[in-house]
Amino acid sequence: MSITVVGSVAYDSIETPAGRRERCLGGAATYFSLAASFFTNVRVIAVVGEDFGSEQEAVFAAHGIDTRGIEHTAGKSFFWEGSYLENLNEAKTHTTELNVFGSFEPKIPDSYRDSEFLFLANIDPVLQRRVREAMPGVKLVAGDTMNYWIKDHRPALLEVLKRLDVLLINDTEARMLANHNNLVQAARAVLSFGPRFLVIKHGEYGATLFHGSAQGKTGERTFRAPAFPLESVIDPTGAGDSFAGGFFGYLASQPELTPGAFRRAMFYGSTMGSFACERFGTERLQQLSRAEIDERFQRFRELTHLD
Amino acid sequence: MSITVVGSVAYDSIETPAGRRERCLGGAATYFSLAASFFTNVRVIAVVGEDFGSEQEAVFAAHGIDTRGIEHTAGKSFFWEGSYLENLNEAKTHTTELNVFGSFEPKIPDSYRDSEFLFLANIDPVLQRRVREAMPGVKLVAGDTMNYWIKDHRPALLEVLKRLDVLLINDTEARMLANHNNLVQAARAVLSFGPRFLVIKHGEYGATLFHGSAQGKTGERTFRAPAFPLESVIDPTGAGDSFAGGFFGYLASQPELTPGAFRRAMFYGSTMGSFACERFGTERLQQLSRAEIDERFQRFRELTHLD
Repeated sequence: MSITVVGSVAYDSIETPAGRRERCLGGAATYFSLAASFFTNVRVIAVVGEDFGSEQEAVFAAHGIDTRGIEHTAGKSFFWEGSYLENLNEAKTHTTELNVFGSFEPKIPDSYRDSEFLFLANIDPVLQRRVREAMPGVKLVAGDTMNYWIKDHRPALLEVLKRLDVLLINDTEARMLANHNNLVQAARAVLSFGPRFLVIKHGEYGATLFHGSAQGKTGERTFRAPAFPLESVIDPTGAGDSFAGGFFGYLASQPELTPGAFRRAMFYGSTMGSFACERFGTERLQQLSRAEIDERFQRFRELTHLD
Repeated sequence: MSITVVGSVAYDSIETPAGRRERCLGGAATYFSLAASFFTNVRVIAVVGEDFGSEQEAVFAAHGIDTRGIEHTAGKSFFWEGSYLENLNEAKTHTTELNVFGSFEPKIPDSYRDSEFLFLANIDPVLQRRVREAMPGVKLVAGDTMNYWIKDHRPALLEVLKRLDVLLINDTEARMLANHNNLVQAARAVLSFGPRFLVIKHGEYGATLFHGSAQGKTGERTFRAPAFPLESVIDPTGAGDSFAGGFFGYLASQPELTPGAFRRAMFYGSTMGSFACERFGTERLQQLSRAEIDERFQRFRELTHLD
C-alpha cells in the first residue's frame, strides 16, 4: 500500500534546554514521511524554494520517499523559528515565514493517484479539501489541523472534517474544536462533525483513540496508548507528526483495518513520536532502523501489559 | 492482611464547575480507607473534634473500617475549603483550618500493632516517621507527601523516605522533590532517597510505577496505568488518596507481592481514583460495590490491551 501526504517541507531553527540548531530540515510532511517510510511507501506533495537542494532531497531518497510531488519554485522555503525553554510540551513561536508556502497550490502527480491512503497534514483546510476531492478513490483519509484554522477558518475546516476517516489533534485543539473542556465529551462532539476515528495526542502522556459509534457511547470503543517515559527529551518538534506517520504508516502496511490494527497503530505512533524527541529535528528519524522500532514497540507493550 | 493508615479525617467545602458542597466528610485517611476497604481490613489513626459524630462514624462502620485509632478531642475537626473552577487538575485552596489536627499526636491502639501494611498519608513527616518507627514489624510501608513538606521540611521528609517501600506523589511533587524536570530522571533521584517503588500520579492521564534497580536503569522496570477517560468529572478531591487506597488495598489482599500484583494494583488504583471523581466528596466511594470495581478494572484492561 502507499500513502500520499500533503503538507509542509520547511526549515526550522529550534532552541530547547538541550541547545540550539539553525535551519534543520523540518515541516509536518517531512516528519510524517520519514516516520511512515519504515512501514510503507510514501509520496509527498509540498512546495520548496531554491534553498532546498540535493542534500535535503537525499534525506527523502534514503528512505525511499517519492518526492515527485515536491514543487520547486523561486524564493525561499517555509521557515519556522521557535523555542521550548519553559515548557517542553509547548513551543513558543518566534518567527513564521511562509515564503513559497504562502501561495502553495498542491499539484498531484499522476503517479500518486493510485495511493490507497491519504494524509492531509496541517495546512489551510481549503487546500486539504481540494486534495481530498482530487483523490476520491483512497481507502482511508486522515488529517491534522491546528488552533489557527480552528479559530479563524472554522467553516472550511468543518468541510474537511466531513471528508476525513481519522482526525489526529492534541488535547488543546480537541477542546477548542468542540468547545468542551471534558475530553470524552469533546471527542464525542468532534466525531459528530464527521471523522469515524479521533486520535487525541496528550504529549508526554500518550494518546487516546476514540471510535465513533451509532449509539454515541464511548468507553468500550476507546483505546489509550502510553507515551514512552523518555530519560531525555532533546527536541519535541515534529513528535506529533511522527506519531501520525507511525500510526498511519502502520495502518497502511496492514492487510485489514481491524480494531487490533488500530490499537497497534496507536502504539507504533507513540513509538515514532518518542524517537523523534531524542535528537534535534529529524536527526533521530534519519538514523533509525526498523529493528529499533520493533524493540521499542515491545517495550511499550510491556509498559502497560497486565499479565 | 490489614492496613493501618495514619492521616487526616476532615471536613471539606468544595466548589467545582458542577456545583458546591459544604462540609463534606473528607481528609486523606478517609478517602484512602474507603477505597482500600473494598480489598482488605483497614484501621485508621487520626484525630477529630466534637463536630465528628455518629453520622460520620457510620460511614466508616459501613465499610468495616476500624476507627478505634481515631482520637476524639475538644475543638473542631480539620477543615479545608477549595475550588477547581479554572482547572479540574489543581485545587485552589481558600481556607485551611488545622483545628485539632494542629496538635495531632498519633496514638496507635495495641489492636493495630499486628497490621502487615502501613500507609502514611500526607501529614508532617516528623509524625510519619514516629508512626513508622512505632510499627517496625510491618511488611510494606507506603506514604504520600505534598509540596509544603518538600519545600519547607525537606530534612524531616528525607528521613521518612529512607523508611518507605513505596512513595506515591504527583508529577509536580516528584519534580520538586528531585529538582529535575524530566520525570524519568526525577524518578531515579527520588528512588535514590530510599523508596524501592515510586508511583507518580499524572491526574487525568494515569500514573507510572518506577521500580528502583541496582543498575539504576529504568524502562524495563517501569509500568504505566492509564486513567479512565471519564465523561464527567464532578469533583476531583481525594482522587489521589483513593488511588493510593485502591493500590495499597489491592496489594494487601494479595498472597504474594509479585511484579504482576504491583501492575494490577496500579490499575486498581486508577479505578478507585476514577470513581472518586464521579460525585462530590466521598459520595461515590460510599455507594460503590466490588462488582462495579471489577467491571471497571476490566474496562481499564481493555483500554490499553493490544491483542
